[in-house]
Amino acid sequence: MTPLRTALYQGPGGVPASTADSLAALGRAARRAADAGARLLVTPELSLTGYALGSAVPELAEPADGPGAQAVAQIAAEHSLAIAYGYPERDGAAVYNSAQLIGPHGTRLANYRKTHLFGEFEAAHFRAGQDPIVQTELDGVRLGLLICYDVEFPETVRAHALAGTELLLVPTALMRPYEFVPQTLLPTRAWESQLYIAYANRYGPEGEFTFAGLSCLAAPDGTVRTRAGTGEDLVIADADPAFLAASRAGNTYLTDRRPELYSPLPPQGEPRR
Amino acid sequence: MTPLRTALYQGPGGVPASTADSLAALGRAARRAADAGARLLVTPELSLTGYALGSAVPELAEPADGPGAQAVAQIAAEHSLAIAYGYPERDGAAVYNSAQLIGPHGTRLANYRKTHLFGEFEAAHFRAGQDPIVQTELDGVRLGLLICYDVEFPETVRAHALAGTELLLVPTALMRPYEFVPQTLLPTRAWESQLYIAYANRYGPEGEFTFAGLSCLAAPDGTVRTRAGTGEDLVIADADPAFLAASRAGNTYLTDRRPELYSPLPPQGEPRR
Repeated sequence: MTPLRTALYQGPGGVPASTADSLAALGRAARRAADAGARLLVTPELSLTGYALGSAVPELAEPADGPGAQAVAQIAAEHSLAIAYGYPERDGAAVYNSAQLIGPHGTRLANYRKTHLFGEFEAAHFRAGQDPIVQTELDGVRLGLLICYDVEFPETVRAHALAGTELLLVPTALMRPYEFVPQTLLPTRAWESQLYIAYANRYGPEGEFTFAGLSCLAAPDGTVRTRAGTGEDLVIADADPAFLAASRAGNTYLTDRRPELYSPLPPQGEPRR
Repeated sequence: MTPLRTALYQGPGGVPASTADSLAALGRAARRAADAGARLLVTPELSLTGYALGSAVPELAEPADGPGAQAVAQIAAEHSLAIAYGYPERDGAAVYNSAQLIGPHGTRLANYRKTHLFGEFEAAHFRAGQDPIVQTELDGVRLGLLICYDVEFPETVRAHALAGTELLLVPTALMRPYEFVPQTLLPTRAWESQLYIAYANRYGPEGEFTFAGLSCLAAPDGTVRTRAGTGEDLVIADADPAFLAASRAGNTYLTDRRPELYSPLPPQGEPRR
């Protein structure tokens, strides 16, 4: 199985005047990624609309097969490149903070609704998803989807690894001063659960937020295979299933677990005294 | 509540001719720690006997109230200092890889049997413990015990945090080339589960192994408050319950978890396809 060349687009920045602006930036990133041989392009949380939407979330929300999805599908098909993007998803009265993966033929492959909402803005405008494990396959590699704060909980990544995920795609809107997350926590997640993590962050100031950039592809040996800066950026690295298999054979966390000792964990902090 | 001044003794090195040599080194470390105001001294995995024991494990094993425990209790009482040490524990026909905490009055406070054995040597000579959460209290701070490989599993540390542990003591025998663990994984554990971790490692060559040193006290803000080198060392830092409480109030991983989504995790890697 050949490595899956993966591009991380750290952009577009800010809240665009219209989604057409985001889609134009996404198209340019897709072209550059495809020219570099990438088969997959991961973009940030809410990359279609911008993050600091305030009360505009409901009007910008669209269904998973809405016009934004169709436009991304055109870009994907034009460049024969799978694209993961973030958007506010409408489903009846509910709005979710979602990430969707469109395949290189323009087909919708997977749609994930963020299960761990972060902060007051998200709590006010989004409903939390209920399905922690959404997976699909691309070029023989098992992919999973999480969004930003989700990946900071070891439980979510562990569940993906145990369910067979090899490359976890994480559209993100990580703010300053939480640089610890891309710099230290992400490599630990990839190491402890033995998988690749593609973490595509926003950058720069946006409304009341300032995003930290530092998008990265973390590998199961704890190395960071590529790292973006703190401005708009496009970085590329490979996720190699053969390397992952060898790593899992040598670093046996997934089989050395003792789940009979962990479950059920107490749901809250109830001291055992 | 005042901070708990904690010393990490990265020693003694090698396998001693007798436990008396280890106890003498432990006594010197206890004196230095007490002189620096420490109330707690954490020492490595199997610090009483050495690690590379080969088939000598059964004859060196002793019960939790054996002569080694009594000698450590004398040292603790002499210096008014709690001491965590590692030893091969005999219980009937079984031998465990254990860590025991003796209080500053010489009382045995807690005894923990390693639940995640590492590698062929440990699998051949030790039985795995069955109780993942062993806790006690010192100067009003809730302490827990794990040993080496245990702490590399996020489940164990999470369970401690949810059970109220504030400072996790981790006697360790971490080998090269696993420096990723003290350098990157430990700070992540402390951050993601919001507690302090006192990680006391062995150092230098010993039989077929070479230990990595780099003992550290990791704090809930992801910082390393003190770090040993790669030779014999004694380092000291504070674990501050007030800082921990403030950190947990700001970084709400423990209450933002969604345990209804995590449990039950599949016990093995059964891909959901």
